[in-house]
Amino acid sequence: MNPTGRREGVTTVLKLGGSVVTEKDRPETVDRDGLADVTASIGSAEPDRLVVVHGGGSFGHHHAAAAGVSETEGTDDAGSIREIHAAMGRLNAAVVDALSEQGVAAVPVRPFSLGHRAADGTMTLPADGVEAMLAESFVPVLHGDVVVHAGKGATVLSGDEIVGSLARSLSAERVGLCSSVPGVLDSSGDVIDRIDEYGTVADALGESDATDVTGGMAGKVRSLLQLPAPASIFGPEDLRTFLDGGRPGTLIDGNA
Amino acid sequence: MNPTGRREGVTTVLKLGGSVVTEKDRPETVDRDGLADVTASIGSAEPDRLVVVHGGGSFGHHHAAAAGVSETEGTDDAGSIREIHAAMGRLNAAVVDALSEQGVAAVPVRPFSLGHRAADGTMTLPADGVEAMLAESFVPVLHGDVVVHAGKGATVLSGDEIVGSLARSLSAERVGLCSSVPGVLDSSGDVIDRIDEYGTVADALGESDATDVTGGMAGKVRSLLQLPAPASIFGPEDLRTFLDGGRPGTLIDGNA
Repeated sequence: MNPTGRREGVTTVLKLGGSVVTEKDRPETVDRDGLADVTASIGSAEPDRLVVVHGGGSFGHHHAAAAGVSETEGTDDAGSIREIHAAMGRLNAAVVDALSEQGVAAVPVRPFSLGHRAADGTMTLPADGVEAMLAESFVPVLHGDVVVHAGKGATVLSGDEIVGSLARSLSAERVGLCSSVPGVLDSSGDVIDRIDEYGTVADALGESDATDVTGGMAGKVRSLLQLPAPASIFGPEDLRTFLDGGRPGTLIDGNA
Repeated sequence: MNPTGRREGVTTVLKLGGSVVTEKDRPETVDRDGLADVTASIGSAEPDRLVVVHGGGSFGHHHAAAAGVSETEGTDDAGSIREIHAAMGRLNAAVVDALSEQGVAAVPVRPFSLGHRAADGTMTLPADGVEAMLAESFVPVLHGDVVVHAGKGATVLSGDEIVGSLARSLSAERVGLCSSVPGVLDSSGDVIDRIDEYGTVADALGESDATDVTGGMAGKVRSLLQLPAPASIFGPEDLRTFLDGGRPGTLIDGNA
């Protein structure tokens, strides 16, 4: 820490995809090998100011689906909200524990406690507490969750939406999405090196919004192109390269 | 709910003392009878807009003491922070579960995720998410916790401090502290009916600040006298009376 108490350096927001840390097809099952692999990369890289966000994978999705809750469809049933949130809490604890085993000063941050949506869906997710954690050299670990939504009870807040919100609020220099694929793939299955605008990859990603409501790759690319910072999408094997300052997988930069 | 989506009515902030919901002398032991008793009162009273805050009792205090953490002494050890916070999370889950069994739409709110302290100890605890929960007819349940503290790692945030902060932020009309004693006692052991200024009870409560660092009754009374709303301190047997609009135990009103 410097004398003002603020830990200096590059701010990185890292998403660990639900498919990387859980076994997506088995309810509430952590992918122990996958989790150990990515947390070891984080522990050995020792990035300056790191925020980790993980997806729901097999912990969040089936509870949300059972309750009929999505980013736009809400529930006012407190029991359903508690169930989805508690399941995500169990996954969050597993991720925080795995990070701490690698010597990372990980601390849990629960989005349901922190954020809420206005009636039109606009998200408020205050970042000054996360900033205070970074300044104290902690590594806050957030997750996809439910959040209260005015007039709808509660709706889903995806890990991707948290990444976008925090990347902006914290003026993050680097954004990384560690996913189960090595990058954005073109129609031949090859990793696209760089995307500066959506038009150039629209054909490869497909244009159908109807098939993309759950946050498929086309939606991710569109969102990441709106960020002020460049973002990288890569697979677990490239996480260490990313944390060391590299640009593995696909670089998405709408400001280029 | 009214057409604007905001649930109307009186806003009440209710503290459940750690000595009411836990067995204070046995580590991490819920007082099942005590908890069932107060949650039954809450469930049957059905107050309009209710925020519940509970203390740490035997869940928070021994972990905090073991780590040497207080409201002013911090720790930068992420492991200690996680332990204290997780213990309080287990108590919070027990309180939320007990409330839900009584039909209360209780949802957990974790202060570590929400608040932080500046270097001088000033607390920031955003209340707009809690307000959004109240508007959707949920009953947010907060608890004494650790929070990040600039330059100190993390320090303790007591349930009493949360009550004061939320009572102000939410402009609560009513504040209740359900404790293991039936009110503020005078030197003869009788309940003082009403306190409008500290001077009138200073002798009975004792003036020694040195013996009051852990939030004894003198400190509570001083803090409650600063609130814009009147506050009542009462025992569990008077909780229902309080929730029905009564003024059991000791009324503390610095604005009288």
